[in-house]
Amino acid sequence: MIIIGEKINGAIPSTAKAIANKDADFIRDLAIKQTEAGANFIDVCASVDDDIELETMKWLIDIVQAATDLPIAVDSPNVLTCIESMKYCNKPGLFNSVSLEGDKVDLAFKAIADTKWECVALLNSDKGIPKTAKDRLDVFADLMVKVKEYNIDPSRMHIDPLVEMLCTSEDGISMVTEVIRGIKEQYPTIHVTGAVSNISFNLPVRKMVNMGFVVLAMNAGMDSAILDPLNRDLMGIIFATEALLGEDDYCMEYIGAYREGIFGTLKK
Amino acid sequence: MIIIGEKINGAIPSTAKAIANKDADFIRDLAIKQTEAGANFIDVCASVDDDIELETMKWLIDIVQAATDLPIAVDSPNVLTCIESMKYCNKPGLFNSVSLEGDKVDLAFKAIADTKWECVALLNSDKGIPKTAKDRLDVFADLMVKVKEYNIDPSRMHIDPLVEMLCTSEDGISMVTEVIRGIKEQYPTIHVTGAVSNISFNLPVRKMVNMGFVVLAMNAGMDSAILDPLNRDLMGIIFATEALLGEDDYCMEYIGAYREGIFGTLKK
Repeated sequence: MIIIGEKINGAIPSTAKAIANKDADFIRDLAIKQTEAGANFIDVCASVDDDIELETMKWLIDIVQAATDLPIAVDSPNVLTCIESMKYCNKPGLFNSVSLEGDKVDLAFKAIADTKWECVALLNSDKGIPKTAKDRLDVFADLMVKVKEYNIDPSRMHIDPLVEMLCTSEDGISMVTEVIRGIKEQYPTIHVTGAVSNISFNLPVRKMVNMGFVVLAMNAGMDSAILDPLNRDLMGIIFATEALLGEDDYCMEYIGAYREGIFGTLKK
Repeated sequence: MIIIGEKINGAIPSTAKAIANKDADFIRDLAIKQTEAGANFIDVCASVDDDIELETMKWLIDIVQAATDLPIAVDSPNVLTCIESMKYCNKPGLFNSVSLEGDKVDLAFKAIADTKWECVALLNSDKGIPKTAKDRLDVFADLMVKVKEYNIDPSRMHIDPLVEMLCTSEDGISMVTEVIRGIKEQYPTIHVTGAVSNISFNLPVRKMVNMGFVVLAMNAGMDSAILDPLNRDLMGIIFATEALLGEDDYCMEYIGAYREGIFGTLKK
């Protein structure tokens, strides 16, 4: 499972405050803690006004790179910000994200085509968020035409099927799992990712819904996720699920992660 | 999900002590707490020497029936004990359990045939525990010949595919989920049950493995389980999974169970 640590995001109030106050220690601490917790990428999203977004991204990326060797996920709804932010990174990371809206995908793919950068792609288009599994897989097919056109290996792509809140659903997550299965059947080496906590919006005891979702999504083929690696229960159930799904012989990885203190009762 | 509350079992040290000391209050309390936590059956297993097993079952069943209206699961490895214990029950419950070993199934099915009792059946036989999914489904086929012979409706059966410890497995739980799927495909109204906590034997942070297993087993078709309903996280993930699997429109059951205090932070 590829963990994209989501904590350095200006949409989170405590991180927004640290950004506003130029509190480098707070950001550094989040980078180190997420690294220790087993993240594979450190997501960096400024969520500030446009006129200071790039300088904020540079400030954040500089702090993170001084604190950890993990690659960075440059995260902005504006692909131009992502493209500019790539230049601040001292090694290839994750472009987060593109979609088939407007010319985003051409701009992004042109920027990453001849690099080792990986890329998150959301399955929405100029028509909005497709309502059915078939429509999302159609958007996926259009996206893969572009992936091929720019000669990007599918293994560099993290497809986000768009995780929506469960509380308004009448048939649970069957549509999303169908999309995940459809993607992995066509491209076994592609990654499927998602913003896990979206599923539990507006529900009590969100962690129960988040944990159940992760298990079912991994069972369908999700192998990457944007989440809080400091959530020990979520990390624990991810390791447990890998073992249950037969991807961890004799539970060696599960036991190892426990011994490293990634989940279980916090040791003093 | 049908919850068979497992707490009144002499194999649990605290319950064994209460049985040895004739501590009726302790047993009564377990019956009431499991009822409040959402159990559908209260399992009663004496786990004492043969010569006092029946009198102990009667003592336990009398206490439980005075404390709760829930039906009882009469639980013994000895089918004759189960058959005798049925007589102590004031309403039909769950016969726990039979298997294809020796004449167990004939004795048990003869006893329950013309009643409303339900029955747990384990998929082992005189040849032991089958090693492959095919062999377990063969035992299941033999069992269903008997179920038909005694004119027992499949909906009264709870098939236990035999949950074994994950730590010695090389391919996770794929064999068990294959058996569960095979059973439900053939008999959509049959119940599939299991002793959930067996999966995590010998592993750290057992609840992570138990929770992950429940989600995947429910996804495969398990709709009954022998577990501790006082384990709030396990109950929470069961309700979450029902919603995720589309069996709980708009999460109404999930939200209701939370409001009843079945899971989530314990209210003072």
